[in-house]
Amino acid sequence: MSTLLGHNFIAGHRSAQGSKHLQSLDATTGEALPYTFIQATEGEVDAACRAAEAAFDEFRHLSPARRAEFLDAIADEIDALGDDFVAIVCRETALPAGRIQGERGRTSGQMRLFAKVLRRGDFLGARIDQALPDRKPLPRVDLRQYRVGVGPVAVFGASNFPLAFSTAGGDTAAALAAGCPVVFKAHSGHMATADQVGCAIIRAAEKTGMPNGVFNMIYGGGVGEWLVKHPAIQAVGFTGSLSGGNALCKMAAERPQPIPVFAEMSSINPVVLLPQALATRGETVAKELAASVVMGCGQFCTNPGLVIGVSSPAFTAFLGQLQEQMAAQAPQTMLNAGGLRSYTQGLEHLAAHPGVTHLAGEAQSGSQARPQLFKADVALLLQGDELLQEEVFGPTTIVIEAQDDAQLKAALQGLRGQLTATLIGETDDLVAYQWLVPLLEQKVGRILVNGYPTGVEVCDAMVHGGPYPATSDARGTSVGTLAIDRFLRPVCYQNYPEALLPEALRNSNPLGLKRLVNGEWSDAAL
Amino acid sequence: MSTLLGHNFIAGHRSAQGSKHLQSLDATTGEALPYTFIQATEGEVDAACRAAEAAFDEFRHLSPARRAEFLDAIADEIDALGDDFVAIVCRETALPAGRIQGERGRTSGQMRLFAKVLRRGDFLGARIDQALPDRKPLPRVDLRQYRVGVGPVAVFGASNFPLAFSTAGGDTAAALAAGCPVVFKAHSGHMATADQVGCAIIRAAEKTGMPNGVFNMIYGGGVGEWLVKHPAIQAVGFTGSLSGGNALCKMAAERPQPIPVFAEMSSINPVVLLPQALATRGETVAKELAASVVMGCGQFCTNPGLVIGVSSPAFTAFLGQLQEQMAAQAPQTMLNAGGLRSYTQGLEHLAAHPGVTHLAGEAQSGSQARPQLFKADVALLLQGDELLQEEVFGPTTIVIEAQDDAQLKAALQGLRGQLTATLIGETDDLVAYQWLVPLLEQKVGRILVNGYPTGVEVCDAMVHGGPYPATSDARGTSVGTLAIDRFLRPVCYQNYPEALLPEALRNSNPLGLKRLVNGEWSDAAL
Repeated sequence: MSTLLGHNFIAGHRSAQGSKHLQSLDATTGEALPYTFIQATEGEVDAACRAAEAAFDEFRHLSPARRAEFLDAIADEIDALGDDFVAIVCRETALPAGRIQGERGRTSGQMRLFAKVLRRGDFLGARIDQALPDRKPLPRVDLRQYRVGVGPVAVFGASNFPLAFSTAGGDTAAALAAGCPVVFKAHSGHMATADQVGCAIIRAAEKTGMPNGVFNMIYGGGVGEWLVKHPAIQAVGFTGSLSGGNALCKMAAERPQPIPVFAEMSSINPVVLLPQALATRGETVAKELAASVVMGCGQFCTNPGLVIGVSSPAFTAFLGQLQEQMAAQAPQTMLNAGGLRSYTQGLEHLAAHPGVTHLAGEAQSGSQARPQLFKADVALLLQGDELLQEEVFGPTTIVIEAQDDAQLKAALQGLRGQLTATLIGETDDLVAYQWLVPLLEQKVGRILVNGYPTGVEVCDAMVHGGPYPATSDARGTSVGTLAIDRFLRPVCYQNYPEALLPEALRNSNPLGLKRLVNGEWSDAAL
Repeated sequence: MSTLLGHNFIAGHRSAQGSKHLQSLDATTGEALPYTFIQATEGEVDAACRAAEAAFDEFRHLSPARRAEFLDAIADEIDALGDDFVAIVCRETALPAGRIQGERGRTSGQMRLFAKVLRRGDFLGARIDQALPDRKPLPRVDLRQYRVGVGPVAVFGASNFPLAFSTAGGDTAAALAAGCPVVFKAHSGHMATADQVGCAIIRAAEKTGMPNGVFNMIYGGGVGEWLVKHPAIQAVGFTGSLSGGNALCKMAAERPQPIPVFAEMSSINPVVLLPQALATRGETVAKELAASVVMGCGQFCTNPGLVIGVSSPAFTAFLGQLQEQMAAQAPQTMLNAGGLRSYTQGLEHLAAHPGVTHLAGEAQSGSQARPQLFKADVALLLQGDELLQEEVFGPTTIVIEAQDDAQLKAALQGLRGQLTATLIGETDDLVAYQWLVPLLEQKVGRILVNGYPTGVEVCDAMVHGGPYPATSDARGTSVGTLAIDRFLRPVCYQNYPEALLPEALRNSNPLGLKRLVNGEWSDAAL
């Protein structure tokens, strides 16, 4: 790792004009790692954004197949990051090597999936309405539409997925696939990881002949504001806290030219336990649920933070079993010291509320997060108490016991927008509680049956999004191939000479696209 | 027109709880028309939003074919609005009967086009990734995605299209097609028109068995704020001024739950005149362009407000011809007195600027708008002067003469986002100036060649949108079938029992959709 420079990535070069030095920390011991990073100056942030802007025109005009080569090359470079790289990520995040190896594969797989989307071509949204010169009362002129990248995208990576939601993560992959150069703000929690991944992207860009400035990365605290306010930036991707996401949305809305922010923020991911399932397999559910709550030290966006069911002897038995399970979970090291502080504060807020009872978990102390179980009065949801709505990031969950179905319904209606909702039920349960589905559809981006939300498949059908405050725009997803839509906008060409049209819209259909032609889908030439 | 009640439309009934009475005016004479409208109270706005919310669940679960029946029925009712209706619209707007008859056909045609979209079904965006239980290292669970309506939509109609962009206009059609009930804020400039169209929609809703509350309409000034801030409203469609659109965006962003606003606002629609075209047909262009500038008294969103070319003898000759053409244009009555005041002010601002020269048009006075031609120094665009960027709503345009191609490029780069840009050129021109296209693609939603922007076809390929300030979200369009996308969001179903899945996602494919199944498009059953 002698190549770990710690300089900003600007237009294919490294830049270190600033005087503020940053250290990466070992997440387990808190000691400084032997790498130094140079905080970007305002001039460097400007240069990074200008580099992305300068690259945009060439990059977006590359054929989808050429951009796919670039994404595949990034995937290869990421797969080639070896054991020494995994060791660095583990030191910066306290995540185990097996998890990081898995995440590396997920990250390269994500790039390859977007390469496939590029080769399939439907993301272009090609539509053609041919001229109807003889139409009465007025003729129709030839009109053709496809989608282009919105422009340079600023991406803020997540702390909790140092690879899959970070430097070469989902937002970066979606933006590059859309033809948008990226300026990435490295997360302060894993700067050495970011540096290595940034180098991998640059190697891929060089190997596949991409324009300088297609990918840029800056280090530092507080530099994000310059980035979001820069006139070259046309959209923002963010994964993090509600307060962080709200702040970025406000900045973006107050620009002379407002831009969209796709922020994935806060979700408590309710799990609804249905009666037959509790009666027949309550103990198994308790075990599986506890495992989901503590997975990755509870630091998943889709961590099940709220468990709700209707009062019954089986529910009471389940509660006892969940109490046992949660009490038996080992403490774990969190991603960083700030995360542990927030977790501790979150637990204190819960404990201090008269409507909340502590059910399991040793008193929080020391350098690791201790798993905790709480029970809250259903009244908190019915009355819209803020406490339950805020995600406590860490290995804890809150159980709610509704008196009957009507109260269950009212409690779920009291929830704000979520990434996911889960139904645990037998076949009869699911039929009897079918009325829950329309309610949940309006609250969440993904509804799971008999699973746990802490696995997010990267595929075409995934939605990792949902109504506010889960995200800032329920119409997007930040995982899966639909994520590319966030960074595309339609452009229409009227009465255009064939030779000047983009390839996607030419009569000969050189890209072999399925196009909406005169109201019918067709992959034929015209 | 004895049925013209003037009461608010709430949940299929009429309501007049307020004490403030509003009058509709004859746009030509300024005299009050014999219809009285009752301003909605805050309670009535709440009731209208609650009615939309209550209708949402039933309405969105209707099959696309059932919603298509509703839209077709609205189209039939609109077509049946007869000569007495046209006469009212003409009195309220000062637009000629021929134009209103044409707009009536455009409005019903728009409804029928969205009915076709519903029957085609691709708007549902169905995607299926089947389970891969044997995948290594981890199995894949079954995941299915489609799109649902976002919820009740608030629509603010435009003054300048009393039918096609108003009560039953494009935003209403797109929202209803998406399964979103509508609360429409009637425009104060054509309340009698709105009342008649509102009745037509309600008749169609009753004939096709739609839930009460699927369409609601409120009258009044200042009631829009209650509407946008109402918790039941999930998105806003707006066509109007930049200041009005910005104000709605701000309100929507500051809600406890922020919601998206799709505002179509300000555009000056540059027309670029290329040298060969000027040399061979400058006089024809001058004539056509003048006709486009004064069409509908210059009150189109796509009115060509800026004409730009490179200095040459042909350009000078063209300028003289345009001057003659514009001087010969007759004054026209604007949509309302406020419009005339704004136009007069806009002209005064132009005349007062030292960089702007008045070239043609009689001094503005009286009750009609007099067509005007100005020339502005190219420096205004190069220096980003605000004056040229603001749309002057009315029959006027501004000519800019660039010294050379480099200055033409720099001037166009100085423009903000636009709905359209137009190139007038011979074949050789278009090849020589191909470098303009990438620049214009980043500025506008629609690029026209050898046409004029003041005709907006309603079809699949149309984009009536563009970067800010043309609209608040460049990723949308408010004309054409893509407009439905603004009011849809994706929902994902994980590991769902077949019988509980929405029809669009069932294995048997009962809707006969083209779906993205395991990464390939298919209309087969699974």
